[in-house]
Amino acid sequence: MKRTLREIANLVGGKIIGDEDIEIKGVGGAENASSGDITFALNEEFLKLAQQKAGAVLIVDTLATEDSPNSLVIVDNPRLAFAKVAKLFAFKPYYRPGINKNAYIDENAEIGENVSIHAGVTVEAGAEIGDNVILAHGVYIGHNVSIGENSIIHPNVVIEYDSQIGRRVEIHPNTVIGSEGYGFEPGESGYVKIPQFGNVVIKDDVEIGSNVTIDRAATSSTIVGRGTKIDNLVHIAHNVEIGSDCLIVAQVGIAGSAKIGDRVTLAGKSGVVGHLTVGDNTTLISNSVITNDVPPNSVISGYPAHDHRLERRIKVARKKLPDLLKKVRQLEENIKSLEEKLEKER
Amino acid sequence: MKRTLREIANLVGGKIIGDEDIEIKGVGGAENASSGDITFALNEEFLKLAQQKAGAVLIVDTLATEDSPNSLVIVDNPRLAFAKVAKLFAFKPYYRPGINKNAYIDENAEIGENVSIHAGVTVEAGAEIGDNVILAHGVYIGHNVSIGENSIIHPNVVIEYDSQIGRRVEIHPNTVIGSEGYGFEPGESGYVKIPQFGNVVIKDDVEIGSNVTIDRAATSSTIVGRGTKIDNLVHIAHNVEIGSDCLIVAQVGIAGSAKIGDRVTLAGKSGVVGHLTVGDNTTLISNSVITNDVPPNSVISGYPAHDHRLERRIKVARKKLPDLLKKVRQLEENIKSLEEKLEKER
Amino acid sequence: MKRTLREIANLVGGKIIGDEDIEIKGVGGAENASSGDITFALNEEFLKLAQQKAGAVLIVDTLATEDSPNSLVIVDNPRLAFAKVAKLFAFKPYYRPGINKNAYIDENAEIGENVSIHAGVTVEAGAEIGDNVILAHGVYIGHNVSIGENSIIHPNVVIEYDSQIGRRVEIHPNTVIGSEGYGFEPGESGYVKIPQFGNVVIKDDVEIGSNVTIDRAATSSTIVGRGTKIDNLVHIAHNVEIGSDCLIVAQVGIAGSAKIGDRVTLAGKSGVVGHLTVGDNTTLISNSVITNDVPPNSVISGYPAHDHRLERRIKVARKKLPDLLKKVRQLEENIKSLEEKLEKER
Repeated sequence: MKRTLREIANLVGGKIIGDEDIEIKGVGGAENASSGDITFALNEEFLKLAQQKAGAVLIVDTLATEDSPNSLVIVDNPRLAFAKVAKLFAFKPYYRPGINKNAYIDENAEIGENVSIHAGVTVEAGAEIGDNVILAHGVYIGHNVSIGENSIIHPNVVIEYDSQIGRRVEIHPNTVIGSEGYGFEPGESGYVKIPQFGNVVIKDDVEIGSNVTIDRAATSSTIVGRGTKIDNLVHIAHNVEIGSDCLIVAQVGIAGSAKIGDRVTLAGKSGVVGHLTVGDNTTLISNSVITNDVPPNSVISGYPAHDHRLERRIKVARKKLPDLLKKVRQLEENIKSLEEKLEKER
Repeated sequence: MKRTLREIANLVGGKIIGDEDIEIKGVGGAENASSGDITFALNEEFLKLAQQKAGAVLIVDTLATEDSPNSLVIVDNPRLAFAKVAKLFAFKPYYRPGINKNAYIDENAEIGENVSIHAGVTVEAGAEIGDNVILAHGVYIGHNVSIGENSIIHPNVVIEYDSQIGRRVEIHPNTVIGSEGYGFEPGESGYVKIPQFGNVVIKDDVEIGSNVTIDRAATSSTIVGRGTKIDNLVHIAHNVEIGSDCLIVAQVGIAGSAKIGDRVTLAGKSGVVGHLTVGDNTTLISNSVITNDVPPNSVISGYPAHDHRLERRIKVARKKLPDLLKKVRQLEENIKSLEEKLEKER
Repeated sequence: MKRTLREIANLVGGKIIGDEDIEIKGVGGAENASSGDITFALNEEFLKLAQQKAGAVLIVDTLATEDSPNSLVIVDNPRLAFAKVAKLFAFKPYYRPGINKNAYIDENAEIGENVSIHAGVTVEAGAEIGDNVILAHGVYIGHNVSIGENSIIHPNVVIEYDSQIGRRVEIHPNTVIGSEGYGFEPGESGYVKIPQFGNVVIKDDVEIGSNVTIDRAATSSTIVGRGTKIDNLVHIAHNVEIGSDCLIVAQVGIAGSAKIGDRVTLAGKSGVVGHLTVGDNTTLISNSVITNDVPPNSVISGYPAHDHRLERRIKVARKKLPDLLKKVRQLEENIKSLEEKLEKER
């Protein structure tokens, strides 16, 4: 696969300084790109590195020089432009149109055009697999699951019955979608499972990391909104609803029935208690826990999570706590001795 | 599958107001049940919803009305009754008696009656699979593993050698039972593994979520007691012993050799340090860490976990810490100036 | 499999008191070893237990007695010696040389001598599998992955393209190596993935637990150093570099581009923020978060992690915080009343 630099500049809306006809065969980091690669640079240091070996460099106009040893492409956002170009050249390890003879497809499943279904895959009755979908090694697709076109399901992912997966969704290895929610009622001889016959709905353009668990709702749907990106080892409980364009970072846990707005960031290892509402555009700092409803546009941290600036002041202040205790004990004595002096002088 | 309302009332020990002969074909939530469904309601608001569409509603007697548009079933605990009825109608996606031709069963494994063994399953030598057991897609059952009757093992679960799984146990996808415990001894040229040749014992009626890890003991057994329910992404280290009817919520971690009593709740993201004993009926609040032995009937939180009421007071007080520091500095000055005044006046 | 006690003593450099010719057939814990087993004891209590049933006991010389009912082997470090002996006798459930007919090996993969490749395994083009490697049930080995000799890959592990796995590496079930790093750039219509075309490099003698996730680097390599041991449910983000002989305990999370030195211990549930450097020989206490660069030889805890002794004093002091607030309020009043008295007396 090759593209001329002109084709690439057209793709990202860039302006070329240098040779428009050179052929680009791939992408690389500034420090390890080769002469057939395009890379990007955000400052002069990286630009110098990139000019030593790469065939071309994506930069903003303020970094442009006339005498560059290689071609430059001026764009508004070099990192974003690089992301687009890299996608063009990306290795697609699971793209292999056809159905492997060691995949088990139920005769009542609907399979779209140009799908890649690998060895060890199971697709159950009633499932609908869209065009260009990839189901990699060992994937399990339960009854009546639908997967929208162009989605990529990595090895050993399990998607249980009735789950609905949108278009252009990518799910990384060993993740579980649609397992039963965790709900029990004390019975005469131990806990009785509260039935979990709802489903999971994953909207378009969602990306989900490895070893993530997203549980089915009790009676309705657990929902992950359009464009939301979920990192590894995240737990999303039954009946949670997450809005669009959220960032849910590694090892986050969201308890049952929480409602997360749009463009919310939950940083690593943070948590949200059940049945709460988190407003749009909220950012929760890492290792914090939301225990109350949160208004939109909040920047919060701590456990319980509250205004991040307050929490930062608390985190500084708590270091002084052992000394504070001593000082207060000292002040107490000072006051006592003052009182005694005053008493005496009467 | 259909049942008359009379049959259902008998199952849950309920009393019918209305038509006993109507046929129930399934269950639904109060807000989305259809006319062939039975649902439940815990208050008047939900009863009203439920009366609009459902065929019948499970309620307590104080909610009963004479003029209900649909049939009512009076029970002591509507949620519990609903759980039982729902189980009756539940979709059983993995119930498919027989052994798939793409499963690999060692000739020295013992397989019970009426098992459902799916594609891509491996069962090793010496394993014993009880009657009515379900081994779903891609499950691995190691040497000498036993699985009690009526247990359900979801796709891609791995159960390593010598593990003992009880009856009516359910294990959700991608969980690992019986992996080696984490124990190392410094040697001449790096860490040497401390042998982990014990096993894991899961008692009857346990439920285990997705992507859980339960490690085998070094020389004896890691034990999960009867009826205990474990949520997703939980880590249980080697030699841990957990009692009966515990609730171990998502992302909890229990370090090696900890002993957890009966009816203990460990809320989400909490942890237990190794070699500790946690008494019966203890509740650990979410995101807390137990660092000392805990007597029975404790309600604890924080890190280190201590009395929950104390921790709540601390969590309120710490918000005032930055201001407290200022105030103490002010008091210090006030005292100094008092001392100076007193000095002067002498 | 049998060994004389003499052979075992030679293996661990030990000195025998008793019968050198007895045959040892296995290992056991002090409390449950049988007469053909060897065990170890670190104190008199365990030695007594071990002498009741075991065939032989590994001990230090200070525990040696002349009249032992069974044979003793004097060594410098009984636990370490036991680890070596146990490895000799260990059950090797996945050792089964040959390639299962239900494994799918690409014709362009290179397969070493004496490998055990089980049912349901996929090995893609360009992969290199070293001598004596074990790929258990359902493992996925991506394009151009290399696995060094004598490594053991447990069931359902997924290793994505270009990953390099060293020699004598053991990876436990359902772990994911080489999944895409989590990096996104805001675009015109939602987040755009930052390309992740680097790889993961696992050096020799590394052990990795179950359900772990180690992400590929954006353009270079995520690295785990020689002899490092990783527990279950750990998350290692893209571009992280971990040194040699580290202990990374369960549920730890390490954010992108963090650099961890040699012989570092990160205890359970702890975390490291991205782009930081953690010096050699550092110990991070459980449930703590590193938020700044850490010099070598540190013992740290808390969030933010700082000197562990300070954090311990803070943890004690914070229990007194609610009372401290009251006391300061009281002191404030005392001072006020002192000031009033002084005012009056003028």
